[in-house]
Amino acid sequence: MTVTQSRATERKDARPLPGHRVRLGADRPLRLDCGAELHDFPVAYQTYGSLNRDKSNAVLVCHALTGDQFVAEPHPVTGKSGWWDLMVGPGKTLDTERYFIICANIVGGCMGTAGPKEIDPATNKRWGVDFPVITIGDMVGAQTLLLDHLGIEQLFVVIGGSLGGMQVLQWAAAFPERVFAAVPIAAAAHHSAQNIAFHEVGRQAIMADPDWCGGDYENNGKHPHRGLAVARMAAHITYLSEPALHRKFGRRLQDRKAVTYGFDADFQVESYLRHQGITFVDRFDANSYLYITRAMDYFDLTGEHGGVLANAFRGTKTRFCVFSFTSDWLFPTEESRKIVHALNAVAANVSFVEIESEDGHDSFLLEAPEFHRVLNGFLNGAAEHRGLPRAG
Amino acid sequence: MTVTQSRATERKDARPLPGHRVRLGADRPLRLDCGAELHDFPVAYQTYGSLNRDKSNAVLVCHALTGDQFVAEPHPVTGKSGWWDLMVGPGKTLDTERYFIICANIVGGCMGTAGPKEIDPATNKRWGVDFPVITIGDMVGAQTLLLDHLGIEQLFVVIGGSLGGMQVLQWAAAFPERVFAAVPIAAAAHHSAQNIAFHEVGRQAIMADPDWCGGDYENNGKHPHRGLAVARMAAHITYLSEPALHRKFGRRLQDRKAVTYGFDADFQVESYLRHQGITFVDRFDANSYLYITRAMDYFDLTGEHGGVLANAFRGTKTRFCVFSFTSDWLFPTEESRKIVHALNAVAANVSFVEIESEDGHDSFLLEAPEFHRVLNGFLNGAAEHRGLPRAG
Repeated sequence: MTVTQSRATERKDARPLPGHRVRLGADRPLRLDCGAELHDFPVAYQTYGSLNRDKSNAVLVCHALTGDQFVAEPHPVTGKSGWWDLMVGPGKTLDTERYFIICANIVGGCMGTAGPKEIDPATNKRWGVDFPVITIGDMVGAQTLLLDHLGIEQLFVVIGGSLGGMQVLQWAAAFPERVFAAVPIAAAAHHSAQNIAFHEVGRQAIMADPDWCGGDYENNGKHPHRGLAVARMAAHITYLSEPALHRKFGRRLQDRKAVTYGFDADFQVESYLRHQGITFVDRFDANSYLYITRAMDYFDLTGEHGGVLANAFRGTKTRFCVFSFTSDWLFPTEESRKIVHALNAVAANVSFVEIESEDGHDSFLLEAPEFHRVLNGFLNGAAEHRGLPRAG
Repeated sequence: MTVTQSRATERKDARPLPGHRVRLGADRPLRLDCGAELHDFPVAYQTYGSLNRDKSNAVLVCHALTGDQFVAEPHPVTGKSGWWDLMVGPGKTLDTERYFIICANIVGGCMGTAGPKEIDPATNKRWGVDFPVITIGDMVGAQTLLLDHLGIEQLFVVIGGSLGGMQVLQWAAAFPERVFAAVPIAAAAHHSAQNIAFHEVGRQAIMADPDWCGGDYENNGKHPHRGLAVARMAAHITYLSEPALHRKFGRRLQDRKAVTYGFDADFQVESYLRHQGITFVDRFDANSYLYITRAMDYFDLTGEHGGVLANAFRGTKTRFCVFSFTSDWLFPTEESRKIVHALNAVAANVSFVEIESEDGHDSFLLEAPEFHRVLNGFLNGAAEHRGLPRAG
């Protein structure tokens, strides 16, 4: 296995991605839930901090649907701050002076790890929708290969929000001995009918765009930007709470004193959503959006364990800290409570905190002092039990 | 003014719509909020029951975004039952043996009343997006002309849900002397930021479809069916509650025993949504969807009355009965409560009932015995005060 920079020729903008890229599965392929196998496939990842001598301070951050491995550094495409800059860094809650932070682009993603945008070695063309449909289990499977590559037997913590939280649950269920502590945030053990419905709208918006070309747009020199922008707009509404939208925008007009009696973005909230859609297409691949939403829809830890979620965690020694946010209507507290009840049923070591927040599902990405305070306490307690020295 | 059947030549399917169609505004044009005027324009409407001698038993039903005048009879395009068949008929809550029920297709609609799908008399071509942008006030303005035409001075009741409820509020605010009783259901005095956001997604989905042709699709022999279907799918999710989606569909699969690892409709909820989208485009005009959603976004009775909603109702003698539904997250109870507070502030005669229901925003269209029972009580009381004889 060799760590390489991503090859410029594979990237749309012809600039290599910064960071690490490794090819995995050359000797032992990753067998996917759909039955296909990935051989010798790329995984792109970033790290922050240093791995200690006994490799006991590794924290795996699992990113969400539209996130990537650029957790705590400027994004190579947008130039914006890392998506969890508030969380990861020296002296921060995920303290890079104490922990070795790893974040890998998920399988199915579009930032250097194997996915529909990458080259299919069998054809030397982009995979497109010939890429096998993947699951949260497959994402975690690829991450285990990365940890093997890095020589890390057990993660100190695996942590993530939303889709990231689903990966955390999958890690804890499938590889309990490799997870000392698990922090699923704003997540659920299965995707609800409403969640699936919103994802289906996004997928239909993409597939309705003639420039999607049946999934083969890259090889046709096109991009379904309009469809992907609509998908992003619809999803974005679900990430915010109604009170947050009211507070941020209300019915305020955008650079005008009165409505224009037309279909321009009269309202600030329209202008904001359009901006979200337009900027998203510059950094995200439409097919990846299909694949990752599908993986989330398929996620059903309860169903996979005979309808009893507790069976997913029987005998676990992992320490859990489960977070939800009061105004999150996409992954409401009730879903976190189900996880906690299942963990209680197997006498697992679990803390559960519902954080008061008006910011909806996105709360975990934003300023949330109480969230950080509680998480910090949990991490310190776990670190003590793990025998990690204090930072500094 | 002449009542005519709609002319076959104006209809896409070359079949005339059943029911009444009248041309209004020939002698006195309808001045729209945007400043434009509608001269000699069609209004299509249906009636059920008989107008009594002193014209005191007229009930105006205001339809919602995708509704129309076919309240209590099979729909001429889909063949399905009238959208409020549960409510309107002999012996039903809106008893056609007692009341004279009127429902007119709204201005901007696509079932025979002036809107983007109709012919612009100035050009003899379809209006398309040259149709002036209309407001809830304009919809009600056209309805006042229809009442003048029918010789009805005062409505016994004006009633409607959602957009229909907005029209009810507009009626009560703008023409209090013409409204004996008003029943706004699952409505709000203004559209929230979240409401606007969801509408904007739908509009962007339509306008992103190349077959929209900048709004001129009819004259180009095309239809933005894919975009309109996506808009409908997104909206449809907002009409149902999460518990209703869970109960109806959960994570159940559609005609298959296992997921297919693909992008077909594996889940029942996906199949249902796709069906909603596909069937909608057969009966609805994409430009009408733009215009009507815009009218809802613009609705702000509070803003129009100096930020004090009570000012909209000062001095009113109308009797109000305001309904909301517990699981309606699109027009939540809180919005109805604001209306009630405003009415209380001007000492109006108002009842307010929040109905327990799991069916979300669409509750008012579905079996809801408690809703019907309370409404029936209100109507009977109002009828007694109005001096209407009992039915039968």
